[in-house]
Amino acid sequence: MDLEKSPLALPFPEMPPIDGVTLRVARARYKDWDRADLTLIEVAEGTAVAGVFTQSACASSEVELGREQVKSGSARALVVNAGNANAFTGYRGREAVEAIMAQVGDALDCPSEQVFVSSTGVIGVPLPKDKARDGVAAALTAEPCRWEDVASAIVTTDTFAKGAQTSAMVGDARLELVGVIKGSGMIAPDMATMLGYIFTDADVAPAFLQELLTQANAETFSCITVDGDTSTSDTVLAFATAKADHPPIENWDSPGADAFAAALTDLCRQLAQLVVRDGEGASKFITVRISGAANDESARRVALAIANSPLVKTAIAGEDANWGRVVMAVGKAGEPADRDKLSIAFGGIWAARNGLPVEDYDEAPVAEHLKGQEIDLAVELGIGEGRASVWTCDLTHGYISINADYRS
Amino acid sequence: MDLEKSPLALPFPEMPPIDGVTLRVARARYKDWDRADLTLIEVAEGTAVAGVFTQSACASSEVELGREQVKSGSARALVVNAGNANAFTGYRGREAVEAIMAQVGDALDCPSEQVFVSSTGVIGVPLPKDKARDGVAAALTAEPCRWEDVASAIVTTDTFAKGAQTSAMVGDARLELVGVIKGSGMIAPDMATMLGYIFTDADVAPAFLQELLTQANAETFSCITVDGDTSTSDTVLAFATAKADHPPIENWDSPGADAFAAALTDLCRQLAQLVVRDGEGASKFITVRISGAANDESARRVALAIANSPLVKTAIAGEDANWGRVVMAVGKAGEPADRDKLSIAFGGIWAARNGLPVEDYDEAPVAEHLKGQEIDLAVELGIGEGRASVWTCDLTHGYISINADYRS
Repeated sequence: MDLEKSPLALPFPEMPPIDGVTLRVARARYKDWDRADLTLIEVAEGTAVAGVFTQSACASSEVELGREQVKSGSARALVVNAGNANAFTGYRGREAVEAIMAQVGDALDCPSEQVFVSSTGVIGVPLPKDKARDGVAAALTAEPCRWEDVASAIVTTDTFAKGAQTSAMVGDARLELVGVIKGSGMIAPDMATMLGYIFTDADVAPAFLQELLTQANAETFSCITVDGDTSTSDTVLAFATAKADHPPIENWDSPGADAFAAALTDLCRQLAQLVVRDGEGASKFITVRISGAANDESARRVALAIANSPLVKTAIAGEDANWGRVVMAVGKAGEPADRDKLSIAFGGIWAARNGLPVEDYDEAPVAEHLKGQEIDLAVELGIGEGRASVWTCDLTHGYISINADYRS
Repeated sequence: MDLEKSPLALPFPEMPPIDGVTLRVARARYKDWDRADLTLIEVAEGTAVAGVFTQSACASSEVELGREQVKSGSARALVVNAGNANAFTGYRGREAVEAIMAQVGDALDCPSEQVFVSSTGVIGVPLPKDKARDGVAAALTAEPCRWEDVASAIVTTDTFAKGAQTSAMVGDARLELVGVIKGSGMIAPDMATMLGYIFTDADVAPAFLQELLTQANAETFSCITVDGDTSTSDTVLAFATAKADHPPIENWDSPGADAFAAALTDLCRQLAQLVVRDGEGASKFITVRISGAANDESARRVALAIANSPLVKTAIAGEDANWGRVVMAVGKAGEPADRDKLSIAFGGIWAARNGLPVEDYDEAPVAEHLKGQEIDLAVELGIGEGRASVWTCDLTHGYISINADYRS
């Protein structure tokens, strides 16, 4: 089916090349479509890599292999297949991934373990080895391309290509960080897995890059939800080519560690929010902010309980400041809360304070806020210092149409 | 709004009177409607009571009080208010409940603690004391009525009145068990809380009645879901009047304990399934059966992850045997699972076995099954002996219409 572009889409940004990163795409024709669907990104020798992966107990072979590969901390290439998730395909699926790793390893004269592979698309069908082989061969000899070409080649059901960039100053050196991402439901008609890739010219020790990515993930990718569903293939990889001229960042005491960490988190947040902006059927981008929770993790769980509540999401779709549903979602989160200390605000205007509706509550400005595309929902639990923000979208007829009315 | 009767509705059954139980309803006019909305049920002296309540951290005053009241094990009356949930109303809400308890206690000459109160409807508005007082006064002098009148007086957004009955033989004595219930989402535009009430003429010790109800709840009410949302007021109470002529059932060694326990569980299952049958927008009743899990509780969690997955629920609404979404839901449940041992069947026909799509899978009979109103989805995890069944409904445009398109 052809989907209309999300009303929350952002234009593709200007993104600089990253020294040590070469982008290529090709047509493997994993589906009967006329577009590039195989991406091959070569990274320079000495590139550090880190990754975070789905916690699904039924992960794909790509994820199983990737979890092992990142332990070495070294990468030379990334291959992304779009159109076939190669999930739930047993040993044949695994063989297909290993064949790609070997082919690219041979071509680049590197250990196959330094070739990372991701796949997204239909499941239950092993990745066709012949199409993959021909596609990789074509990509190896293709002209280099731009970030937007890559962002377009990795999508499946996304309605717009997603990229982001930022930078960090370390002494006199300006470190560039860029990223591309795909995903629209946590999973969609064709397994719209979230796959995100970050590239930087920074010189970062692999173990510290992993620490920073894990930390950034906790505040960004782990704080978005479209429908609470989790793909069997979700993956975010970060590659650091060490081409920028600065002392290596090896731990928190290294010069520039804080600046780089902040930039990496900022980039992850931008990328994560782009996925929400392409949430299936989304008409509103919702920020749920929790304060006063027992601790930060408790705040995140309460925020996700609200962000995943079909009743909260439909209320916002209906532009209804239904704080009763927010109370319900807080109550079901299974986290410490006290009904009589709870306060709830839409767009900065308190609807309920300390467990009671606000006496002379003026609904007009709240109704105006809810008519917009950017919704702010704040909940103060009043029992501690824990804080968290999560991002989600509303639940509309569009979501049902995409997921029920069409056959995948 | 007026909702059409659920296509999954069942007719109201023949239900016998229960010795020691007197039913009355009245018009408190909690909303601007022309119907009975206050129920007063008097139970004989010596009636044992047990209850299970929402685990919400933001429960209503009625629930807070009820949790305390059941500890005494004795009841004389039940009052149910429909149209106002009295939730998130602070001390004024609590005062309104205590006033009802005192008024009924005076009239029946019993301690007010033996008067149980439930309320369902809009939240954030304290139950109006004057309407409650006049309604209770009217109910106290009303003519006794039938079960169907009670089942109709306790509803809010339900599209049909819900009742069930069963019986158990203990020696020569036939014990009658009946129940009424209301609820359609776990929570709905007007807080469509689940409230269930069970009455029996059995003579059961309060502590044992509580044990049996807790156990039955784990297999029935705790195994249904419409949207994964949980009301702040969910309540199930069981009243046993001890009017039947049989030796008291005091523990598992008492004659008839097994028969009574089985009947109670059967009644709870019937009532629980009626709520799913009135699930907002439901067009299909779905049974999710898990086998081969690490243990029974793990099986229940996997089953609920599937039953709560918007992508599984929309796939079934679309009559799509999308077992990939079932794999995804199993993977995200956070319970032990092995992708390569997983098998999935629709309507008894295996679509995937041991982590692979079935080779010569014939979709035609599965497609036929999915066109029906009663859907059976079975998942064999292949790692243990744990089993569970849960019941849910599909996710349709109707759910969005009820919860987003209309203002509550």
